[in-house]
Amino acid sequence: MRIGFIGFGEVGYEMSKGFLTEDPQAQFFVYDPLYEKEETQQRAKKTHATLFSDPQSVAKETLDVLFVAVPAPFAEDAWRSIWSELNEETLHVDLTTASAQVKQRLGEDMLNEKRTFIDGAIMGALKVYQHKVPIMVSGTGSTSLIDWGKSTHMNLTYAGDLPGDATNIKFIRSIFTKGLSALLHEVMQAADKLALDDIILDSITRTMDKEPFEQIINRLISSNVIHSQRREKEMENVIDFLNSHGIEPQMTKATRDKLKMITQANILEKNQGDPPKDWKQVMRLVNCT
Amino acid sequence: MRIGFIGFGEVGYEMSKGFLTEDPQAQFFVYDPLYEKEETQQRAKKTHATLFSDPQSVAKETLDVLFVAVPAPFAEDAWRSIWSELNEETLHVDLTTASAQVKQRLGEDMLNEKRTFIDGAIMGALKVYQHKVPIMVSGTGSTSLIDWGKSTHMNLTYAGDLPGDATNIKFIRSIFTKGLSALLHEVMQAADKLALDDIILDSITRTMDKEPFEQIINRLISSNVIHSQRREKEMENVIDFLNSHGIEPQMTKATRDKLKMITQANILEKNQGDPPKDWKQVMRLVNCT
Repeated sequence: MRIGFIGFGEVGYEMSKGFLTEDPQAQFFVYDPLYEKEETQQRAKKTHATLFSDPQSVAKETLDVLFVAVPAPFAEDAWRSIWSELNEETLHVDLTTASAQVKQRLGEDMLNEKRTFIDGAIMGALKVYQHKVPIMVSGTGSTSLIDWGKSTHMNLTYAGDLPGDATNIKFIRSIFTKGLSALLHEVMQAADKLALDDIILDSITRTMDKEPFEQIINRLISSNVIHSQRREKEMENVIDFLNSHGIEPQMTKATRDKLKMITQANILEKNQGDPPKDWKQVMRLVNCT
Repeated sequence: MRIGFIGFGEVGYEMSKGFLTEDPQAQFFVYDPLYEKEETQQRAKKTHATLFSDPQSVAKETLDVLFVAVPAPFAEDAWRSIWSELNEETLHVDLTTASAQVKQRLGEDMLNEKRTFIDGAIMGALKVYQHKVPIMVSGTGSTSLIDWGKSTHMNLTYAGDLPGDATNIKFIRSIFTKGLSALLHEVMQAADKLALDDIILDSITRTMDKEPFEQIINRLISSNVIHSQRREKEMENVIDFLNSHGIEPQMTKATRDKLKMITQANILEKNQGDPPKDWKQVMRLVNCT
Protein backbone atom coordinates (compact mmCIF):
# COMPACT_ATOMS: atom_id res chain seq x y z
CA MET A 1 0.00 0.00 0.00
CA ARG A 2 1.05 3.53 -0.76
CA ILE A 3 0.03 6.19 1.71
CA GLY A 4 0.68 9.93 1.79
CA PHE A 5 0.66 12.22 4.79
CA ILE A 6 0.60 16.00 4.67
CA GLY A 7 1.63 16.72 8.23
CA PHE A 8 3.68 14.04 9.95
CA GLY A 9 2.98 14.72 13.61
CA GLU A 10 1.52 12.27 16.09
CA VAL A 11 -1.38 11.29 13.83
CA GLY A 12 0.74 10.40 10.81
CA TYR A 13 3.52 8.77 12.80
CA GLU A 14 1.29 6.58 15.01
CA MET A 15 -0.90 5.50 12.09
CA SER A 16 2.14 4.66 9.97
CA LYS A 17 3.58 2.47 12.72
CA GLY A 18 0.24 0.69 12.87
CA PHE A 19 0.02 0.20 9.10
CA LEU A 20 3.52 -1.31 9.11
CA THR A 21 2.38 -4.02 11.52
CA GLU A 22 -0.25 -4.98 8.94
CA ASP A 23 1.98 -4.70 5.89
CA PRO A 24 5.75 -4.41 6.37
CA GLN A 25 5.96 -3.41 2.66
CA ALA A 26 3.73 -0.36 3.18
CA GLN A 27 5.23 2.78 1.65
CA PHE A 28 4.77 6.24 3.13
CA PHE A 29 5.32 9.56 1.38
CA VAL A 30 5.24 12.40 3.82
CA TYR A 31 5.64 16.13 4.19
CA ASP A 32 5.73 18.21 7.33
CA PRO A 33 6.43 21.96 7.66
CA LEU A 34 8.92 20.89 10.34
CA TYR A 35 10.67 18.46 7.96
CA GLU A 36 14.07 19.79 8.96
CA LYS A 37 13.49 19.02 12.63
CA GLU A 38 15.37 16.06 14.10
CA GLU A 39 12.16 14.56 15.51
CA THR A 40 10.43 14.59 12.12
CA GLN A 41 13.45 13.01 10.46
CA GLN A 42 13.60 10.29 13.13
CA ARG A 43 9.91 9.55 12.67
CA ALA A 44 10.37 9.21 8.92
CA LYS A 45 13.38 6.95 9.44
CA LYS A 46 11.57 4.65 11.87
CA THR A 47 8.67 4.16 9.46
CA HIS A 48 10.87 4.02 6.31
CA ALA A 49 8.90 7.00 5.02
CA THR A 50 10.05 9.18 2.14
CA LEU A 51 10.19 12.66 3.64
CA PHE A 52 9.73 15.54 1.18
CA SER A 53 10.42 19.20 1.75
CA ASP A 54 7.25 20.26 -0.09
CA PRO A 55 3.67 18.94 0.01
CA GLN A 56 3.29 18.83 -3.80
CA SER A 57 5.84 16.03 -4.08
CA VAL A 58 3.71 13.88 -1.78
CA ALA A 59 0.58 14.53 -3.83
CA LYS A 60 2.40 13.74 -7.10
CA GLU A 61 3.05 10.16 -5.97
CA THR A 62 0.63 7.42 -6.92
CA LEU A 63 -1.21 6.92 -3.64
CA ASP A 64 -4.04 4.74 -2.37
CA VAL A 65 -4.86 7.24 0.34
CA LEU A 66 -3.69 10.77 1.03
CA PHE A 67 -4.20 11.95 4.58
CA VAL A 68 -3.99 15.57 5.64
CA ALA A 69 -3.20 15.74 9.34
CA VAL A 70 -2.14 19.29 10.18
CA PRO A 71 -3.30 21.64 12.95
CA ALA A 72 -6.87 22.84 12.31
CA PRO A 73 -6.02 26.44 11.24
CA PHE A 74 -3.79 25.12 8.41
CA ALA A 75 -6.19 22.50 7.05
CA GLU A 76 -7.63 24.51 4.17
CA ASP A 77 -4.23 25.92 3.11
CA ALA A 78 -2.76 22.44 3.15
CA TRP A 79 -5.38 21.13 0.71
CA ARG A 80 -5.22 24.23 -1.51
CA SER A 81 -1.42 23.97 -1.71
CA ILE A 82 -1.65 20.53 -3.38
CA TRP A 83 -4.86 21.24 -5.30
CA SER A 84 -3.38 20.97 -8.78
CA GLU A 85 -1.70 17.62 -8.04
CA LEU A 86 -4.83 15.84 -6.81
CA ASN A 87 -6.53 13.17 -8.92
CA GLU A 88 -9.73 11.16 -9.15
CA GLU A 89 -8.27 7.84 -7.98
CA THR A 90 -6.72 8.67 -4.63
CA LEU A 91 -8.86 8.68 -1.52
CA HIS A 92 -8.44 12.11 0.07
CA VAL A 93 -8.94 12.09 3.81
CA ASP A 94 -8.96 15.14 6.09
CA LEU A 95 -8.00 14.06 9.61
CA THR A 96 -7.68 17.61 10.93
CA THR A 97 -9.88 19.08 13.64
CA ALA A 98 -10.98 21.89 11.30
CA SER A 99 -14.62 22.91 11.61
CA ALA A 100 -17.45 21.24 9.75
CA GLN A 101 -17.87 24.43 7.68
CA VAL A 102 -14.28 24.27 6.42
CA LYS A 103 -14.64 20.58 5.60
CA GLN A 104 -17.98 21.17 3.83
CA ARG A 105 -16.42 23.93 1.69
CA LEU A 106 -13.43 21.79 0.76
CA GLY A 107 -15.71 18.84 0.04
CA GLU A 108 -17.89 20.84 -2.34
CA ASP A 109 -14.91 22.13 -4.29
CA MET A 110 -13.44 18.62 -4.46
CA LEU A 111 -16.78 17.22 -5.66
CA ASN A 112 -16.85 19.83 -8.45
CA GLU A 113 -13.57 18.33 -9.68
CA LYS A 114 -14.88 14.76 -9.22
CA ARG A 115 -12.41 14.05 -6.47
CA THR A 116 -13.13 12.17 -3.28
CA PHE A 117 -13.05 14.09 -0.02
CA ILE A 118 -13.51 12.31 3.25
CA ASP A 119 -13.97 14.04 6.58
CA GLY A 120 -12.32 11.80 9.15
CA ALA A 121 -12.95 12.53 12.83
CA ILE A 122 -10.59 10.65 15.15
CA MET A 123 -12.56 9.42 18.18
CA GLY A 124 -9.90 7.81 20.36
CA ALA A 125 -6.30 7.76 21.54
CA LEU A 126 -3.80 7.41 18.70
CA LYS A 127 -0.99 6.19 20.92
CA VAL A 128 -3.20 3.37 22.13
CA TYR A 129 -4.86 2.32 18.88
CA GLN A 130 -2.53 3.64 16.13
CA HIS A 131 -4.17 2.95 12.72
CA LYS A 132 -6.98 1.08 14.48
CA VAL A 133 -8.16 4.22 16.27
CA PRO A 134 -11.94 4.67 15.87
CA ILE A 135 -12.55 7.15 13.05
CA MET A 136 -15.94 8.49 12.01
CA VAL A 137 -15.96 9.19 8.24
CA SER A 138 -18.30 11.21 6.02
CA GLY A 139 -18.12 12.55 2.47
CA THR A 140 -17.70 11.26 -1.08
CA GLY A 141 -15.46 8.22 -1.03
CA SER A 142 -16.22 7.20 2.55
CA THR A 143 -17.46 3.76 1.60
CA SER A 144 -14.42 3.20 -0.64
CA LEU A 145 -12.18 4.14 2.28
CA ILE A 146 -14.07 1.75 4.54
CA ASP A 147 -13.55 -1.06 1.99
CA TRP A 148 -9.86 -0.25 1.72
CA GLY A 149 -9.56 0.02 5.50
CA LYS A 150 -11.00 -3.44 6.08
CA SER A 151 -7.85 -5.14 4.80
CA THR A 152 -5.75 -3.08 7.21
CA HIS A 153 -8.14 -3.51 10.16
CA MET A 154 -8.88 0.18 10.44
CA ASN A 155 -11.88 1.00 12.64
CA LEU A 156 -13.98 3.25 10.39
CA THR A 157 -17.63 4.15 10.90
CA TYR A 158 -19.73 5.56 8.07
CA ALA A 159 -21.46 8.82 9.02
CA GLY A 160 -22.98 9.89 5.72
CA ASP A 161 -22.02 11.44 2.41
CA LEU A 162 -21.55 15.00 3.65
CA PRO A 163 -18.11 16.09 4.79
CA GLY A 164 -18.50 17.89 8.11
CA ASP A 165 -20.99 15.41 9.50
CA ALA A 166 -18.24 13.23 11.00
CA THR A 167 -16.77 16.33 12.64
CA ASN A 168 -20.16 17.42 13.96
CA ILE A 169 -20.84 13.96 15.35
CA LYS A 170 -17.52 14.03 17.18
CA PHE A 171 -18.43 17.43 18.68
CA ILE A 172 -21.90 16.41 19.75
CA ARG A 173 -20.64 13.15 21.24
CA SER A 174 -18.09 15.07 23.25
CA ILE A 175 -20.81 17.29 24.78
CA PHE A 176 -22.18 14.06 26.17
CA THR A 177 -19.04 12.26 27.33
CA LYS A 178 -17.31 15.28 28.83
CA GLY A 179 -20.57 16.52 30.31
CA LEU A 180 -21.18 13.14 31.90
CA SER A 181 -17.65 13.10 33.30
CA ALA A 182 -18.14 16.54 34.87
CA LEU A 183 -21.55 15.56 36.25
CA LEU A 184 -20.21 12.35 37.77
CA HIS A 185 -17.37 14.32 39.34
CA GLU A 186 -19.86 16.63 41.06
CA VAL A 187 -22.09 13.75 42.19
CA MET A 188 -19.30 11.56 43.49
CA GLN A 189 -17.52 14.42 45.23
CA ALA A 190 -20.70 15.02 47.24
CA ALA A 191 -21.12 11.30 47.90
CA ASP A 192 -17.55 10.96 49.13
CA LYS A 193 -17.73 14.08 51.28
CA LEU A 194 -20.83 12.75 53.07
CA ALA A 195 -19.37 9.22 53.34
CA LEU A 196 -22.23 7.92 51.20
CA ASP A 197 -20.07 6.87 48.27
CA ASP A 198 -20.80 3.15 48.27
CA ILE A 199 -24.54 3.49 48.59
CA ILE A 200 -24.68 6.21 45.90
CA LEU A 201 -22.55 4.12 43.57
CA ASP A 202 -24.85 1.17 44.14
CA SER A 203 -28.00 3.24 43.66
CA ILE A 204 -26.81 4.93 40.48
CA THR A 205 -25.25 1.90 38.82
CA ARG A 206 -28.36 -0.14 39.54
CA THR A 207 -30.56 2.45 37.83
CA MET A 208 -28.24 2.77 34.85
CA ASP A 209 -27.61 -0.94 34.32
CA LYS A 210 -31.30 -1.88 34.61
CA GLU A 211 -32.43 -0.81 31.15
CA PRO A 212 -30.95 0.00 27.72
CA PHE A 213 -29.64 3.56 27.53
CA GLU A 214 -32.11 4.48 24.79
CA GLN A 215 -34.93 3.93 27.28
CA ILE A 216 -33.15 6.11 29.83
CA ILE A 217 -32.83 8.88 27.22
CA ASN A 218 -36.53 8.64 26.46
CA ARG A 219 -37.58 8.56 30.08
CA LEU A 220 -35.39 11.47 31.23
CA ILE A 221 -36.00 13.82 28.30
CA SER A 222 -39.74 13.16 28.16
CA SER A 223 -40.38 13.44 31.90
CA ASN A 224 -38.79 16.91 31.98
CA VAL A 225 -41.56 18.13 29.68
CA ILE A 226 -44.04 17.50 32.51
CA HIS A 227 -41.90 17.94 35.63
CA SER A 228 -39.33 20.61 34.74
CA GLN A 229 -40.87 23.29 36.95
CA ARG A 230 -40.93 21.11 40.08
CA ARG A 231 -37.39 19.92 39.32
CA GLU A 232 -36.13 23.53 39.00
CA LYS A 233 -37.11 24.04 42.63
CA GLU A 234 -35.58 20.73 43.64
CA MET A 235 -32.31 21.82 42.03
CA GLU A 236 -32.45 25.12 43.94
CA ASN A 237 -32.45 23.08 47.15
CA VAL A 238 -29.63 20.88 45.89
CA ILE A 239 -27.55 23.96 45.04
CA ASP A 240 -27.88 25.14 48.67
CA PHE A 241 -27.07 21.62 49.85
CA LEU A 242 -23.87 21.44 47.76
CA ASN A 243 -22.80 24.95 48.75
CA SER A 244 -23.28 24.09 52.42
CA HIS A 245 -20.87 21.17 51.96
CA GLY A 246 -18.28 23.28 50.13
CA ILE A 247 -18.87 21.72 46.72
CA GLU A 248 -19.11 24.04 43.74
CA PRO A 249 -22.51 23.24 42.15
CA GLN A 250 -21.50 24.05 38.58
CA MET A 251 -23.36 21.22 36.87
CA THR A 252 -26.36 21.53 39.20
CA LYS A 253 -26.73 25.25 38.49
CA ALA A 254 -26.62 24.53 34.77
CA THR A 255 -29.20 21.78 35.29
CA ARG A 256 -31.50 24.25 37.03
CA ASP A 257 -31.03 26.75 34.20
CA LYS A 258 -31.69 24.13 31.53
CA LEU A 259 -34.84 23.01 33.37
CA LYS A 260 -35.98 26.65 33.48
CA MET A 261 -35.49 26.90 29.75
CA ILE A 262 -37.42 23.68 29.22
CA THR A 263 -40.27 25.06 31.33
CA GLN A 264 -40.28 28.26 29.29
CA ALA A 265 -40.33 26.32 26.02
CA ASN A 266 -43.95 25.26 26.71
CA ILE A 267 -43.41 21.95 24.98
CA LEU A 268 -46.61 20.38 26.28
CA GLU A 269 -48.63 23.34 25.04
CA LYS A 270 -47.00 23.14 21.61
CA ASN A 271 -48.18 19.53 21.47
CA GLN A 272 -51.80 20.43 22.32
CA GLY A 273 -51.33 19.15 25.87
CA ASP A 274 -50.28 15.63 24.85
CA PRO A 275 -47.12 14.34 26.51
CA PRO A 276 -44.57 13.75 23.70
CA LYS A 277 -44.15 10.04 23.01
CA ASP A 278 -40.34 10.02 22.86
CA TRP A 279 -37.22 12.21 22.92
CA LYS A 280 -37.36 12.72 19.15
CA GLN A 281 -40.76 14.33 19.38
CA VAL A 282 -39.57 16.53 22.24
CA MET A 283 -36.65 17.75 20.13
CA ARG A 284 -38.79 18.41 17.06
CA LEU A 285 -41.09 20.53 19.22
CA VAL A 286 -38.12 22.35 20.78
CA ASN A 287 -36.32 23.00 17.51
CA CYS A 288 -39.39 23.98 15.48
CA THR A 289 -39.84 27.44 16.92
CA MET B 1 -52.37 -2.92 60.86
CA ARG B 2 -52.77 0.44 62.55
CA ILE B 3 -51.15 3.38 60.84
CA GLY B 4 -51.01 7.05 61.76
CA PHE B 5 -50.45 10.01 59.47
CA ILE B 6 -49.64 13.52 60.58
CA GLY B 7 -50.39 15.34 57.34
CA PHE B 8 -52.88 13.67 55.04
CA GLY B 9 -51.96 15.12 51.69
CA GLU B 10 -50.94 13.17 48.59
CA VAL B 11 -48.36 11.07 50.45
CA GLY B 12 -50.72 9.85 53.18
CA TYR B 13 -53.69 9.40 50.89
CA GLU B 14 -51.88 7.47 48.15
CA MET B 15 -50.04 5.25 50.63
CA SER B 16 -53.25 4.50 52.52
CA LYS B 17 -55.02 3.47 49.32
CA GLY B 18 -52.09 1.16 48.64
CA PHE B 19 -52.09 -0.35 52.14
CA LEU B 20 -55.81 -1.07 51.81
CA THR B 21 -55.18 -3.23 48.75
CA GLU B 22 -52.84 -5.34 50.92
CA ASP B 23 -55.09 -5.42 53.99
CA PRO B 24 -58.70 -4.26 53.69
CA GLN B 25 -58.83 -4.26 57.53
CA ALA B 26 -56.04 -1.68 57.80
CA GLN B 27 -56.92 1.18 60.12
CA PHE B 28 -55.73 4.74 59.61
CA PHE B 29 -55.65 7.53 62.18
CA VAL B 30 -54.93 10.84 60.57
CA TYR B 31 -54.58 14.54 61.20
CA ASP B 32 -54.14 17.34 58.72
CA PRO B 33 -54.07 21.10 59.41
CA LEU B 34 -56.66 21.30 56.60
CA TYR B 35 -58.89 18.74 58.30
CA GLU B 36 -61.95 20.95 57.77
CA LYS B 37 -61.44 21.05 54.02
CA GLU B 38 -63.82 19.04 51.86
CA GLU B 39 -60.92 17.33 50.01
CA THR B 40 -59.33 16.11 53.25
CA GLN B 41 -62.65 14.79 54.50
CA GLN B 42 -63.26 12.97 51.22
CA ARG B 43 -59.80 11.39 51.39
CA ALA B 44 -60.44 10.18 54.94
CA LYS B 45 -63.82 8.80 53.92
CA LYS B 46 -62.44 6.91 50.92
CA THR B 47 -59.77 5.22 53.05
CA HIS B 48 -62.05 4.70 56.10
CA ALA B 49 -59.57 6.78 58.08
CA THR B 50 -60.35 8.31 61.45
CA LEU B 51 -59.74 12.02 60.93
CA PHE B 52 -58.79 14.00 64.04
CA SER B 53 -58.74 17.77 64.50
CA ASP B 54 -55.47 17.65 66.47
CA PRO B 55 -52.21 15.69 65.96
CA GLN B 56 -51.96 14.50 69.57
CA SER B 57 -55.03 12.32 69.16
CA VAL B 58 -53.33 10.46 66.33
CA ALA B 59 -50.19 9.90 68.40
CA LYS B 60 -52.24 8.66 71.38
CA GLU B 61 -53.56 5.73 69.37
CA THR B 62 -51.76 2.39 69.50
CA LEU B 63 -49.95 2.40 66.17
CA ASP B 64 -47.57 0.11 64.29
CA VAL B 65 -46.18 3.02 62.31
CA LEU B 66 -46.62 6.76 62.61
CA PHE B 67 -45.75 8.70 59.47
CA VAL B 68 -45.21 12.44 59.42
CA ALA B 69 -45.83 13.72 55.91
CA VAL B 70 -46.15 17.51 56.07
CA PRO B 71 -44.45 20.22 53.97
CA ALA B 72 -40.73 20.47 54.83
CA PRO B 73 -40.89 23.77 56.81
CA PHE B 74 -43.41 22.23 59.26
CA ALA B 75 -41.63 18.91 59.84
CA GLU B 76 -39.90 19.77 63.10
CA ASP B 77 -42.98 21.50 64.57
CA ALA B 78 -45.11 18.52 63.66
CA TRP B 79 -42.87 16.12 65.61
CA ARG B 80 -42.48 18.49 68.57
CA SER B 81 -46.26 18.96 68.80
CA ILE B 82 -46.78 15.24 69.48
CA TRP B 83 -43.57 14.73 71.45
CA SER B 84 -45.19 13.87 74.80
CA GLU B 85 -47.46 11.24 73.21
CA LEU B 86 -44.72 9.25 71.49
CA ASN B 87 -43.64 5.84 72.78
CA GLU B 88 -40.92 3.24 72.37
CA GLU B 89 -42.99 0.71 70.43
CA THR B 90 -44.25 2.67 67.47
CA LEU B 91 -42.05 3.08 64.38
CA HIS B 92 -41.74 6.82 63.78
CA VAL B 93 -41.12 7.69 60.15
CA ASP B 94 -40.42 11.14 58.76
CA LEU B 95 -41.48 11.23 55.10
CA THR B 96 -41.05 15.01 54.75
CA THR B 97 -38.51 16.65 52.48
CA ALA B 98 -36.95 18.49 55.44
CA SER B 99 -33.17 18.80 55.34
CA ALA B 100 -30.79 16.16 56.63
CA GLN B 101 -29.79 18.54 59.45
CA VAL B 102 -33.37 18.79 60.71
CA LYS B 103 -33.78 15.01 60.53
CA GLN B 104 -30.46 14.45 62.31
CA ARG B 105 -31.49 16.79 65.13
CA LEU B 106 -34.88 15.12 65.53
CA GLY B 107 -33.25 11.70 65.39
CA GLU B 108 -30.79 12.52 68.17
CA ASP B 109 -33.51 13.84 70.43
CA MET B 110 -35.64 10.77 69.74
CA LEU B 111 -32.69 8.47 70.45
CA ASN B 112 -32.19 10.17 73.82
CA GLU B 113 -35.72 9.10 74.68
CA LYS B 114 -35.17 5.59 73.29
CA ARG B 115 -37.66 6.13 70.50
CA THR B 116 -37.21 5.04 66.90
CA PHE B 117 -36.81 7.73 64.29
CA ILE B 118 -36.62 6.80 60.64
CA ASP B 119 -35.72 9.22 57.88
CA GLY B 120 -37.70 8.12 54.84
CA ALA B 121 -36.84 9.64 51.47
CA ILE B 122 -39.45 8.97 48.80
CA MET B 123 -37.67 8.21 45.51
CA GLY B 124 -40.53 7.81 43.02
CA ALA B 125 -44.01 8.81 41.96
CA LEU B 126 -46.62 8.19 44.68
CA LYS B 127 -49.55 8.22 42.29
CA VAL B 128 -47.92 5.42 40.32
CA TYR B 129 -46.59 3.23 43.14
CA GLN B 130 -48.70 4.22 46.19
CA HIS B 131 -47.35 2.34 49.26
CA LYS B 132 -44.91 0.47 47.00
CA VAL B 133 -43.07 3.67 46.07
CA PRO B 134 -39.30 3.23 46.50
CA ILE B 135 -38.30 4.72 49.86
CA MET B 136 -34.74 5.03 51.14
CA VAL B 137 -34.70 4.70 54.95
CA SER B 138 -32.07 5.53 57.56
CA GLY B 139 -32.06 5.90 61.32
CA THR B 140 -32.83 3.86 64.42
CA GLY B 141 -35.63 1.44 63.63
CA SER B 142 -34.98 1.28 59.88
CA THR B 143 -34.48 -2.48 59.88
CA SER B 144 -37.64 -2.99 61.95
CA LEU B 145 -39.56 -0.88 59.45
CA ILE B 146 -38.12 -2.92 56.59
CA ASP B 147 -39.27 -6.14 58.33
CA TRP B 148 -42.71 -4.69 58.88
CA GLY B 149 -42.84 -3.38 55.30
CA LYS B 150 -42.12 -6.81 53.82
CA SER B 151 -45.57 -8.11 54.66
CA THR B 152 -47.15 -5.10 52.95
CA HIS B 153 -44.82 -5.20 49.93
CA MET B 154 -43.35 -1.79 50.62
CA ASN B 155 -40.17 -1.04 48.65
CA LEU B 156 -37.75 0.05 51.37
CA THR B 157 -33.97 0.30 51.03
CA TYR B 158 -31.71 0.47 54.07
CA ALA B 159 -29.34 3.44 53.95
CA GLY B 160 -27.73 3.27 57.38
CA ASP B 161 -28.46 4.07 61.01
CA LEU B 162 -28.17 7.84 60.76
CA PRO B 163 -31.29 9.86 60.04
CA GLY B 164 -30.49 12.37 57.31
CA ASP B 165 -28.50 9.88 55.24
CA ALA B 166 -31.58 8.77 53.30
CA THR B 167 -32.38 12.42 52.58
CA ASN B 168 -28.81 13.13 51.51
CA ILE B 169 -28.80 10.10 49.21
CA LYS B 170 -31.99 11.31 47.58
CA PHE B 171 -30.41 14.74 47.01
CA ILE B 172 -27.17 13.38 45.61
CA ARG B 173 -29.01 10.94 43.35
CA SER B 174 -31.09 13.78 41.98
CA ILE B 175 -27.96 15.76 41.03
CA PHE B 176 -27.21 12.83 38.79
CA THR B 177 -30.61 12.03 37.31
CA LYS B 178 -31.70 15.62 36.71
CA GLY B 179 -28.21 16.57 35.51
CA LEU B 180 -28.22 13.68 33.07
CA SER B 181 -31.66 14.70 31.80
CA ALA B 182 -30.47 18.27 31.19
CA LEU B 183 -27.29 17.05 29.51
CA LEU B 184 -29.18 14.68 27.23
CA HIS B 185 -31.54 17.51 26.33
CA GLU B 186 -28.61 19.68 25.21
CA VAL B 187 -26.93 16.83 23.29
CA MET B 188 -30.07 15.65 21.53
CA GLN B 189 -31.19 19.16 20.67
CA ALA B 190 -27.92 19.65 18.80
CA ALA B 191 -28.20 16.23 17.16
CA ASP B 192 -31.75 16.92 15.98
CA LYS B 193 -30.89 20.40 14.74
CA LEU B 194 -28.05 19.03 12.58
CA ALA B 195 -30.16 16.06 11.41
CA LEU B 196 -27.67 13.71 13.04
CA ASP B 197 -30.08 12.36 15.64
CA ASP B 198 -30.08 8.69 14.64
CA ILE B 199 -26.34 8.40 14.33
CA ILE B 200 -25.74 10.20 17.64
CA LEU B 201 -28.32 8.03 19.38
CA ASP B 202 -26.62 4.95 17.99
CA SER B 203 -23.14 6.15 18.92
CA ILE B 204 -24.06 7.13 22.48
CA THR B 205 -26.23 4.14 23.31
CA ARG B 206 -23.57 1.80 21.98
CA THR B 207 -20.94 3.35 24.27
CA MET B 208 -23.23 3.30 27.28
CA ASP B 209 -24.59 -0.22 26.81
CA LYS B 210 -21.15 -1.73 26.19
CA GLU B 211 -19.92 -1.86 29.79
CA PRO B 212 -21.31 -1.73 33.33
CA PHE B 213 -21.91 1.83 34.50
CA GLU B 214 -19.38 1.48 37.31
CA GLN B 215 -16.65 1.09 34.70
CA ILE B 216 -17.92 4.18 32.88
CA ILE B 217 -17.77 6.16 36.14
CA ASN B 218 -14.20 5.01 36.71
CA ARG B 219 -13.09 5.71 33.18
CA LEU B 220 -14.63 9.18 32.89
CA ILE B 221 -13.66 10.50 36.33
CA SER B 222 -10.12 9.11 36.18
CA SER B 223 -9.35 10.26 32.65
CA ASN B 224 -10.24 13.86 33.54
CA VAL B 225 -7.35 13.86 36.00
CA ILE B 226 -4.97 13.55 33.05
CA HIS B 227 -6.89 15.21 30.22
CA SER B 228 -8.93 17.99 31.87
CA GLN B 229 -6.83 20.82 30.40
CA ARG B 230 -7.12 19.58 26.81
CA ARG B 231 -10.83 18.94 27.32
CA GLU B 232 -11.37 22.50 28.61
CA LYS B 233 -10.22 23.77 25.22
CA GLU B 234 -12.32 21.21 23.40
CA MET B 235 -15.37 22.43 25.34
CA GLU B 236 -14.53 26.04 24.37
CA ASN B 237 -14.85 24.98 20.73
CA VAL B 238 -18.06 23.10 21.42
CA ILE B 239 -19.54 26.18 23.13
CA ASP B 240 -18.88 28.20 19.93
CA PHE B 241 -20.33 25.35 17.90
CA LEU B 242 -23.56 25.24 19.93
CA ASN B 243 -23.92 29.01 19.95
CA SER B 244 -23.49 29.09 16.16
CA HIS B 245 -26.43 26.69 15.88
CA GLY B 246 -28.61 28.70 18.26
CA ILE B 247 -28.44 26.20 21.12
CA GLU B 248 -27.85 27.53 24.63
CA PRO B 249 -24.70 25.70 25.85
CA GLN B 250 -25.64 25.70 29.54
CA MET B 251 -24.40 22.22 30.39
CA THR B 252 -21.36 22.55 28.15
CA LYS B 253 -20.28 25.80 29.81
CA ALA B 254 -20.63 24.16 33.21
CA THR B 255 -18.62 21.20 31.91
CA ARG B 256 -15.82 23.54 30.83
CA ASP B 257 -15.89 25.25 34.24
CA LYS B 258 -15.83 21.93 36.08
CA LEU B 259 -12.89 20.76 33.94
CA LYS B 260 -11.07 23.99 34.76
CA MET B 261 -11.61 23.34 38.45
CA ILE B 262 -10.34 19.77 38.04
CA THR B 263 -7.21 21.09 36.30
CA GLN B 264 -6.64 23.57 39.12
CA ALA B 265 -7.06 20.85 41.76
CA ASN B 266 -3.69 19.34 40.71
CA ILE B 267 -4.92 15.85 41.51
CA LEU B 268 -2.04 14.11 39.75
CA GLU B 269 0.48 16.17 41.69
CA LYS B 270 -1.25 15.37 44.99
CA ASN B 271 -0.80 11.71 44.11
CA GLN B 272 2.96 12.07 43.43
CA GLY B 273 2.35 11.93 39.67
CA ASP B 274 0.61 8.53 39.74
CA PRO B 275 -2.69 8.37 37.87
CA PRO B 276 -5.39 7.53 40.49
CA LYS B 277 -6.54 3.94 40.17
CA ASP B 278 -10.28 4.62 40.43
CA TRP B 279 -12.90 7.30 41.05
CA LYS B 280 -12.76 6.73 44.80
CA GLN B 281 -9.12 7.66 44.92
CA VAL B 282 -9.78 10.75 42.80
CA MET B 283 -12.48 11.89 45.24
CA ARG B 284 -10.34 11.28 48.31
CA LEU B 285 -7.61 13.42 46.73
CA VAL B 286 -10.13 16.13 45.80
CA ASN B 287 -11.86 16.21 49.17
CA CYS B 288 -8.71 16.00 51.30
CA THR B 289 -7.58 19.59 50.85
